[in-house]
Amino acid sequence: MTRTRRILTGFLVLVASSARVWAQDPLPSWNDGAAKKAIVEFVQSTTAQGSPKFVPAEERIATFDQDGTLWVEHPVYSQVIYCLERVPAIVKEKPELANAEPFKTVLTGDREAIAKLPTEDLVKIAAVALSGMSVDDFQAQVKKWLAAAKDSRWKRPYTDLTYQPMQEVLKYFRANGYKTYIVTGGGQDFVRTYAEKTYGIPPEQVVGTAGATKYGYDRSGRPFLTKEPKLLLNDNDAGKPEGIHFMIGRRPHAAFGNSTGDQQMLEYTAAGDGARLMMLVLHDDAKREYAYGPAAGLPDTRVGTFTQALYDEAKRRGWTVISMKSDWKRILAFEP
Amino acid sequence: MTRTRRILTGFLVLVASSARVWAQDPLPSWNDGAAKKAIVEFVQSTTAQGSPKFVPAEERIATFDQDGTLWVEHPVYSQVIYCLERVPAIVKEKPELANAEPFKTVLTGDREAIAKLPTEDLVKIAAVALSGMSVDDFQAQVKKWLAAAKDSRWKRPYTDLTYQPMQEVLKYFRANGYKTYIVTGGGQDFVRTYAEKTYGIPPEQVVGTAGATKYGYDRSGRPFLTKEPKLLLNDNDAGKPEGIHFMIGRRPHAAFGNSTGDQQMLEYTAAGDGARLMMLVLHDDAKREYAYGPAAGLPDTRVGTFTQALYDEAKRRGWTVISMKSDWKRILAFEP
Repeated sequence: MTRTRRILTGFLVLVASSARVWAQDPLPSWNDGAAKKAIVEFVQSTTAQGSPKFVPAEERIATFDQDGTLWVEHPVYSQVIYCLERVPAIVKEKPELANAEPFKTVLTGDREAIAKLPTEDLVKIAAVALSGMSVDDFQAQVKKWLAAAKDSRWKRPYTDLTYQPMQEVLKYFRANGYKTYIVTGGGQDFVRTYAEKTYGIPPEQVVGTAGATKYGYDRSGRPFLTKEPKLLLNDNDAGKPEGIHFMIGRRPHAAFGNSTGDQQMLEYTAAGDGARLMMLVLHDDAKREYAYGPAAGLPDTRVGTFTQALYDEAKRRGWTVISMKSDWKRILAFEP
Repeated sequence: MTRTRRILTGFLVLVASSARVWAQDPLPSWNDGAAKKAIVEFVQSTTAQGSPKFVPAEERIATFDQDGTLWVEHPVYSQVIYCLERVPAIVKEKPELANAEPFKTVLTGDREAIAKLPTEDLVKIAAVALSGMSVDDFQAQVKKWLAAAKDSRWKRPYTDLTYQPMQEVLKYFRANGYKTYIVTGGGQDFVRTYAEKTYGIPPEQVVGTAGATKYGYDRSGRPFLTKEPKLLLNDNDAGKPEGIHFMIGRRPHAAFGNSTGDQQMLEYTAAGDGARLMMLVLHDDAKREYAYGPAAGLPDTRVGTFTQALYDEAKRRGWTVISMKSDWKRILAFEP
């Protein structure tokens, strides 16, 4: 062996072993355990040439719920806070709303009263906060809000409150040829304003609750789209597989959620042939994040939560439940 | 210069000039002319680092109408033929339709009478042919039909009737980092069954007229989606930019069409900042394909055709009209 070849061989061994080290720990924020093992085994077995579970590159689709799965949803969804904080600006534009409920209550700033507003009232507010403007104006409003708004507990922008272990999962899937999609009950246009920067997920890979838009022209003849209050896709529960078919047209091979709103997406994923991965994030870490649902030992029947029934279904079907407390070394990137 | 370096340099020059030769002719089925020049200049100027018209990779979106833009639409859209040819099977399943119009007329096989059916009747037939079954069953039905059905003029499968010059455009855009989308008035689920194989366009990049689906379970508890007769997206005219926003969430940088149904998609594309390419295929080759619309010298006011008004708008706005007769060396891949 010549000296050059020895150097070259040494170099290749070095590259190969670095690659192996990386391959051995694609998920550094995860503790060893059943959840981490399930993810790594799924990715390895579906991407290794010759594996009986091999999935061709074009069929590698992984879908992720957002609120409570990729970022903090407790105690209130960020989008709900956005809508509530838009109310003063909305009333400025439409003064007749100042004395109409539920806008009147929101304007008082009385947190307790606001927290008690029923879902119908939040829907009324959302309809005004999320439609009636051009798509461009809406995006500008959301971006401006996101740049300034802070979560009340961590005093940080909401986009900082993503789960570091899940960011690693997104990157790990993508590094192995999976297209990662957000499939959220949240507003599609809302999430699209930050998904690329926050998760590396482009707008065309965000499936969410979506309203119609209407094409028209401004005074100079320039076309633009107006957000209408007409719902096209309610991307919750059965709406998730329906939205996945509509927007993607393929069944996911992996799906991650954390609530009853994700149950049908996981069922739909599980019903496909070959290797499928179904995972649910359990919020059981009251100290580092929050504990709610079955982890809190309380029956929780609110929409969009992890009910005991879902927990039981997961166990029965062999879906993997991720314990934030024991599976995650670190939850938020900015915390130790 | 050592001998080794001379060889190496010679090799690099060879590689560079092969690359240049390829770069000089990415569109071999196109004659030199304004249309080919517009495409090549657009792609080069939007992808060259440092170009004032540079478009970042993630924003490279190009949208293509299908019928009449990527494949033959004349004299009848393939999907309409599919629906008509489904009628015997439909009536077998629902015998009560045998004596109901328009099914009765279709069953006679009287081509002249069938050709005269008004649009409302075709919509009635489409509603039954394109909904009421599971998504999986529908895909199987379409695939089976496509494998057997033949166009009446060329006696070939419909999927052979794609335009070779446009196939080259799709590949050229993709080779330069553009995501290519079909944005069709045709059925989204219909086109998705063959788009990947026929155009290299995956299901998630097919935007088309789409109905709702409904999530449910079969007797064994396995979930499935049923195609409903409820229209979610009418992807024609203003529905094209609306569908693009819904499904992609970004404005295209290039859009190709051939009819009034594509007008708003091209306007919406043109209204974006920076470099934008708007092109319309003119069917003016009666010998090799068909001549209709303004090329036929006749006012043609049918829905979805290239009207004189659209031709005039294109000229006024500086959109490029592609003459099939003079811009395309070859139209169909299997012809000389």
